Amino acid sequence: MKVLVAGGTGYIGSHICVELLQANHDVVVIDDFSNSKPEVLKYIKEITGKDVKFYEFNILDEKKTEEVFKENDLDAVIHCAAFKAVGESVEKPIEYYTNNLTTTLIVAKMMKKYHVNNIVFSSSATVYGDPEVVPLTEDCKLGETTNPYGASKAMMERILTDVQHACPEMSVTLLRYFNPIGAHESGLLGEDPKGIPNNLMPYIMKVAAGELPCLGVFGDDYDTPDGTGVRDYIHVVDLAKGHVLAIEKYNKPGLHICNLGTGRGYSVLELVHAFERVNGVKVKYEIKPRRAGDIATCYADPTRAKEELGWVATKGIDDMCRDTWNFAKTRMK
Amino acid sequence: MKVLVAGGTGYIGSHICVELLQANHDVVVIDDFSNSKPEVLKYIKEITGKDVKFYEFNILDEKKTEEVFKENDLDAVIHCAAFKAVGESVEKPIEYYTNNLTTTLIVAKMMKKYHVNNIVFSSSATVYGDPEVVPLTEDCKLGETTNPYGASKAMMERILTDVQHACPEMSVTLLRYFNPIGAHESGLLGEDPKGIPNNLMPYIMKVAAGELPCLGVFGDDYDTPDGTGVRDYIHVVDLAKGHVLAIEKYNKPGLHICNLGTGRGYSVLELVHAFERVNGVKVKYEIKPRRAGDIATCYADPTRAKEELGWVATKGIDDMCRDTWNFAKTRMK
Repeated sequence: MKVLVAGGTGYIGSHICVELLQANHDVVVIDDFSNSKPEVLKYIKEITGKDVKFYEFNILDEKKTEEVFKENDLDAVIHCAAFKAVGESVEKPIEYYTNNLTTTLIVAKMMKKYHVNNIVFSSSATVYGDPEVVPLTEDCKLGETTNPYGASKAMMERILTDVQHACPEMSVTLLRYFNPIGAHESGLLGEDPKGIPNNLMPYIMKVAAGELPCLGVFGDDYDTPDGTGVRDYIHVVDLAKGHVLAIEKYNKPGLHICNLGTGRGYSVLELVHAFERVNGVKVKYEIKPRRAGDIATCYADPTRAKEELGWVATKGIDDMCRDTWNFAKTRMK
Repeated sequence: MKVLVAGGTGYIGSHICVELLQANHDVVVIDDFSNSKPEVLKYIKEITGKDVKFYEFNILDEKKTEEVFKENDLDAVIHCAAFKAVGESVEKPIEYYTNNLTTTLIVAKMMKKYHVNNIVFSSSATVYGDPEVVPLTEDCKLGETTNPYGASKAMMERILTDVQHACPEMSVTLLRYFNPIGAHESGLLGEDPKGIPNNLMPYIMKVAAGELPCLGVFGDDYDTPDGTGVRDYIHVVDLAKGHVLAIEKYNKPGLHICNLGTGRGYSVLELVHAFERVNGVKVKYEIKPRRAGDIATCYADPTRAKEELGWVATKGIDDMCRDTWNFAKTRMK
C-alpha cells in the first residue's frame, strides 16, 4: 500500500515509517519538524535502505496538503501529527486545539475528496480518563480528560468516529496507545525532546546521561505496590508494528478501536530501577508531590489486538531500557 | 460596551443585536448569511432606530476577522456563529466540526491578541446529554452528545474553558440555552429556516401556514404525561435579554456557566395545542416512531440566572406561539 504518515519524522512516526518500509509499503511523509529533526529521514534510509517521499510543512496548510493527496495515489493514512506535551497544552490551549483538531479535519476532508478510505489514528489511553477498572478494554467508557492535549485526543476520536458514520465506506481505526518508550535497536531513532522532557523515559535518559540533575517522581502514596504510579509501557517498535498490522487487517469499512499495550504495568520506581540494572547506570531521583490530573494505575487489556490484528508486544521492559540507553549513547556521539 | 456579535443576523443573533442596541451598546456584526438574510439588518434598524456595523464573511476567514478586531476597539464578543442543524450535522460532520470549532478557535485567538477579555458563548442544554435528573442545574455532569452538532457545542465549551484557565484575566461565559422559540413582537425577526425545518416550532409554523402538510411527532410513548417529549421552551427575546445581562454582569475574570430556560417543561402536544388555541389555527400532526438520540424530558433549573444575572423569563408559552404566528404572517406578506 501507499501510506501517508502525517507526522512521520516524530518519535512514533519515524518508527512507523521504518516498519512500513520493511513490510514493503510505500511511504509518503508530511512533517514540519516542529518536534523532530531532518536527520531522521537519513536514519530511516540507513535502517531500511529505502527512501520515503517527504514533504516539509504543517498540515494546517490545506493547499499543500491537497497537493500531496493529488500527487500521490494514497491507499491509507496514518495520522500521528499532533502536539503532545501535556503541560504545554495547559499553557497554550488555543495552539493545541488549533493544531490537533484542524489537522485532523483537513486530513479527513482530503481523504473524503480523494477517496482514501483507510485511516489509522494515533489515539491514547488518556481518553479513558481515570479508569474505573484495570485492565482497560476498548469497551470501557471514556473518561474526563484533564488537560487540552488529552481533550484534543478525545475530540479527534469523536470527529473521526462521526466521519466514519457519515462515510460508511471508510475504515477508521483508533489505536489507543498506552505508554510508548524505548528506541530503535539501531540507536538511530528515539525520543529526544527539545528542552525539559514531558515524559518519564526521556527524563530518566537525560538524568542518566548527566544532562539533568535529578528525576522528580510525582507522588509515592498512590494505591500501588510501591506507591508510585503504574503504567503500561510499550516498546515503540512493537507499537509501530501494530500500525502496519492495523492498516492491513483493518482495511475494511467500519470503525475499529484497539488498545496497544502490553497488559502489564510497571511503577515509576520499577522502571527507574530496571533502567539502572540493565544499563549499569545510576538515576538520581527525588519524590515530589502528586501532580494534578495524574492517576494511580493504568494498563491495557491487549486481547483485542491479539485476536483482531494478531499483534502481541514482543519486547519487555529490559529491551525498552536497553534500547533507550543505546539511543542516548548514539545520540551523544 | 462595544460588542461583536458573531453570527448576528441569525435567528438568535438578530434578537441579541436588538436588545444590545436598546440597552445602548454599540454593535458590530460578522455574518456570512449562510443561514440568514440581508434584510435582517434593515429590520434591526427598523425596530431600534440604530445601525449595527456589519461585515459579511465567514469567521473561518482569519485575516478578515483580524481586520474587524483591529478596526474596532471591542469590549466583548457574543459568539453565536455556528451551524446548528442536528440532522445535517450527522451527514456533514467535517463541515460542522470545521465551521464550529475553527471559528471558535479564531475568535479566541483574536480576543487574546487584541486583549478583548469578555466572551459570551452560545451553548446548549444538549451538553447535559440524557439528564439523570431534572431540573438541570449547571452543576449536573455533562453527558454523551449524540450528534456532531451537540458534540461540537461540548467541544467549544471545553476549548473556551481551557482558554479561560490559560488566560485568567478573561471572562468566559457559557450560556446553556434550552429551547429558544418565538419571534420578535414586531413580526420582523424570527426563525425562518431554509427548506424543511429541523426544529419543532418552525415546523408547526409552516404546517399552520399550509407550507408543509403535516407535523411528525416523534414518539408518544415516552415517560411523560402525554407520552411526547417535554422541553423547556424559552422566548427568544427573553434569551436575548439574558445575553445583555451576561456581558454586563459577568464582565469579570472567571468562567461563568449559566442556564437560560424557564424552568417549566411543555410536551410537544402541549405546544401544538397551545399554538392552535392562541392563534385559532389547525396544526395537523401524526405520531411517528421515536428518533434516535431524543430524550424524554429536559428542563432547566433557572435559579443561577436569577441570582447572578437578575434574569427571569418573562414570556410564556402563549407569547411564544402568538409571536411566532405573527412573524409567519408578516413574513408571508
